[in-house]
Amino acid sequence: MMLSAKIVAEYLGGKVIGNPETAISFVAKIEQGKPGALCFLANPKYLPHLFTTKASVVLISQKLLPIEEVTTTLICVDDAYQGIASVLALFNTYKAQTKRGRSWRAKVSWRAKLGKGIYIGPFAHISKGCVIGDKAQIYTRVYIGESVKIGTNTTIFPGVTIYPGCVVGANCIIHSGVVIGSDGFGFAPTPDGSYKKIPQIGNVVIEDNVEIGANTVIDRATMGSTLIGKGVKLDNLIQIAHNVEVGENTVMAAQSGVAGSSKIGKNCQFGGQVGVAGHLSVADGTKLGAQSGVIGSTKPNDILMGTPAIDIRSFYRAYALFKQAPFKRGVAQ
Amino acid sequence: MMLSAKIVAEYLGGKVIGNPETAISFVAKIEQGKPGALCFLANPKYLPHLFTTKASVVLISQKLLPIEEVTTTLICVDDAYQGIASVLALFNTYKAQTKRGRSWRAKVSWRAKLGKGIYIGPFAHISKGCVIGDKAQIYTRVYIGESVKIGTNTTIFPGVTIYPGCVVGANCIIHSGVVIGSDGFGFAPTPDGSYKKIPQIGNVVIEDNVEIGANTVIDRATMGSTLIGKGVKLDNLIQIAHNVEVGENTVMAAQSGVAGSSKIGKNCQFGGQVGVAGHLSVADGTKLGAQSGVIGSTKPNDILMGTPAIDIRSFYRAYALFKQAPFKRGVAQ
Amino acid sequence: MMLSAKIVAEYLGGKVIGNPETAISFVAKIEQGKPGALCFLANPKYLPHLFTTKASVVLISQKLLPIEEVTTTLICVDDAYQGIASVLALFNTYKAQTKRGRSWRAKVSWRAKLGKGIYIGPFAHISKGCVIGDKAQIYTRVYIGESVKIGTNTTIFPGVTIYPGCVVGANCIIHSGVVIGSDGFGFAPTPDGSYKKIPQIGNVVIEDNVEIGANTVIDRATMGSTLIGKGVKLDNLIQIAHNVEVGENTVMAAQSGVAGSSKIGKNCQFGGQVGVAGHLSVADGTKLGAQSGVIGSTKPNDILMGTPAIDIRSFYRAYALFKQAPFKRGVAQ
Repeated sequence: MMLSAKIVAEYLGGKVIGNPETAISFVAKIEQGKPGALCFLANPKYLPHLFTTKASVVLISQKLLPIEEVTTTLICVDDAYQGIASVLALFNTYKAQTKRGRSWRAKVSWRAKLGKGIYIGPFAHISKGCVIGDKAQIYTRVYIGESVKIGTNTTIFPGVTIYPGCVVGANCIIHSGVVIGSDGFGFAPTPDGSYKKIPQIGNVVIEDNVEIGANTVIDRATMGSTLIGKGVKLDNLIQIAHNVEVGENTVMAAQSGVAGSSKIGKNCQFGGQVGVAGHLSVADGTKLGAQSGVIGSTKPNDILMGTPAIDIRSFYRAYALFKQAPFKRGVAQ
Repeated sequence: MMLSAKIVAEYLGGKVIGNPETAISFVAKIEQGKPGALCFLANPKYLPHLFTTKASVVLISQKLLPIEEVTTTLICVDDAYQGIASVLALFNTYKAQTKRGRSWRAKVSWRAKLGKGIYIGPFAHISKGCVIGDKAQIYTRVYIGESVKIGTNTTIFPGVTIYPGCVVGANCIIHSGVVIGSDGFGFAPTPDGSYKKIPQIGNVVIEDNVEIGANTVIDRATMGSTLIGKGVKLDNLIQIAHNVEVGENTVMAAQSGVAGSSKIGKNCQFGGQVGVAGHLSVADGTKLGAQSGVIGSTKPNDILMGTPAIDIRSFYRAYALFKQAPFKRGVAQ
Repeated sequence: MMLSAKIVAEYLGGKVIGNPETAISFVAKIEQGKPGALCFLANPKYLPHLFTTKASVVLISQKLLPIEEVTTTLICVDDAYQGIASVLALFNTYKAQTKRGRSWRAKVSWRAKLGKGIYIGPFAHISKGCVIGDKAQIYTRVYIGESVKIGTNTTIFPGVTIYPGCVVGANCIIHSGVVIGSDGFGFAPTPDGSYKKIPQIGNVVIEDNVEIGANTVIDRATMGSTLIGKGVKLDNLIQIAHNVEVGENTVMAAQSGVAGSSKIGKNCQFGGQVGVAGHLSVADGTKLGAQSGVIGSTKPNDILMGTPAIDIRSFYRAYALFKQAPFKRGVAQ
């Protein structure tokens, strides 16, 4: 596949600076640019590479201009990072061949309802009462428990387990090793010090356009549903406890965890290894720095850091002093 | 299934306030109570819902009384949270139909010894020398290595791996993706900077009534056994390293980790994302706040917080000052 | 198998103190030493056991001598920990029987290229275009995507998923539940608040002699390769994000995570639950205390602690004051 800078610029609604006929045949990182490559530049940290790259064309964010003269042809767009996504999608099209067919090695209940154009890989197990939407991709050794619903065009990679009664929307991507609908961690203490299991009879509901990273776990609700809203993106190894609700378009980086019954708002951003205690409300647009620990409810668009999490500027101001110890001890004023 | 408030109160040893003949046909969260529902109230935070819920009956903890007059029928018990567990178990009975039978798609060694009334799902693999107790439930694509012992009435959900030689007690529940008996992380440095693997020839022993959450990992001992005591409850994505011992009835929330050879006492409670360094002794009844990092042994019933973990009141007192920076720096006194 | 103290000492290049003909028939922990046992002593914490153990022979590090007189026969070596590794390997040899053969229950593409003397367990799925090296051990229900390369003598335990196009070197050990090559967490924000997926078209390359712990996840690169260098040892439940590079002989303890595009040097040591932010450079020989959070690049052989991570001595000095609050607040100087 061969494209000209001009074609790509038109496709992205951008502007060419340099020779619009420059040919692009693949995409590369700017540090590794070679003739024929299209690279991108969205982060100012990588700006020095622009002057040394051998790439034919660099897709660059408008805000990084004006810059000194460069020999490479540029394509300016509002957001080069989003732009490269579109270009990769273009280049990637040939790979995204939807798989089809059903392996005879799969175990599929005759009481499951299967959509059109679906793929079911070897050693998959689809239980009775399931409804699988059109064009769904169920890879090798996925387990889908009784009465689960999977939306159209959803991809479930190898080794995923979905416990009975859960619901996954359309256009979702569930990576390997994810567990959806395991029992919530609910135990009532008894007088002898042992614990009695609280039956977990709810389910998990995942709305459309959600992506869930490898080995992440989402527990079923004690009663009702654990809810993952539309467009949520969860990274790998995340823990979502029972009865949690995560609002639309919230993104969480790897190894974060949310304890039982907390409600996370829309458009939140969690860094990696964040923890949120139980029964809290994290407001819309909250941003949490990596490794923060939230123990109280937040206000919209709060930007927090630390354990317990406080305003990020306060945190860094305090930490700057903390690390310059010895500081003077005495009676609190 | 239809029960009266009176029946439930008798079953739980509680007291009805209101109409003892009120009918209950299902269980719901108090925010979502509808006629026919039994809800529960154990956390004072949810008290306001009591005055607006449409539930027919609310199970309430004694300590939350006396309250203003309510129209809903109440059942008072010592601990509503424990009470609801019993009621759910009652309602849940019909679902807990034990599965039976053995899928022809499973691979079961003829040298494995199988108990009565067991279930073995498709794509399960049971190796030679295994002993599987009566009524054990082995779900889809569980792998059970050579010479593993599984106790009676234990349930192992899809995709669990149990390495050779490990022992799981009776009445345990092991959730999807759990790995039991993987090699401990033991390497000896060599002069050239590379590492030489220390063979891990021990095993994992899990006693009775243990529940282990999804994708948790328990490594085998270098020599001897990694031990999970009776009644322990581990949440999801927990790491238990080689030669660790966890005492009876200890509970750990998700994403906690215990490094090699540490001994955790009985009746401990770990919040989420707690870390315990290696070769330590965490005493009986220790409580660790979420994200704490323990680097020294603890005393019985310590309540700790922070990294390194200190007394929780000291931690909060210090943190209250820390976050009000600027504090005065100077020479330590 | 029965060995004399003399034989073991010669094998290890050590020196016998006591009766060189003492017989050893098994290996045990020093606390559990019985007649016939060989125990080891490398950590001074366990020194008291030397005077009470019933073990026949104790392998001890040179630096722990001279000690008071003991009745047990000793074998002195430079490093008892490394020594016991060799002895265990000796004793373990009989167990390390390489499995062979190919289960008829596996699904192996005829367009995969299989080496000699390999093992393929039941329910494994090997896709077209794969190249599997000689003596590779592919256990039950491993999934190997299209065009994956696996080196000679590499062992892949049950339930591992390797996405298409990834490369694993020789003599590697991949534990259960590991996911290699899942999509990097790359999304471009759009004006309506939702996110657009950045296609992840790179792969993961794992060099020789790498060991990867259970349920660890390594994401594929957006472009190019996520790289795990020769001799790296990763513990359980670790997150390695897209485009990360980990240098030779670096070891990471459980539940650590490295965010996208960071470069980790050679011979680094990470404690448990460490986090490294994205786009950083962690220099060769950096040591990070457990639960540290690194937000800036490091210098060679730095030893850091805390979030954000600072020099470990500074951290402990500051923390020592912090925990003795109240300290005096006032205007920063």
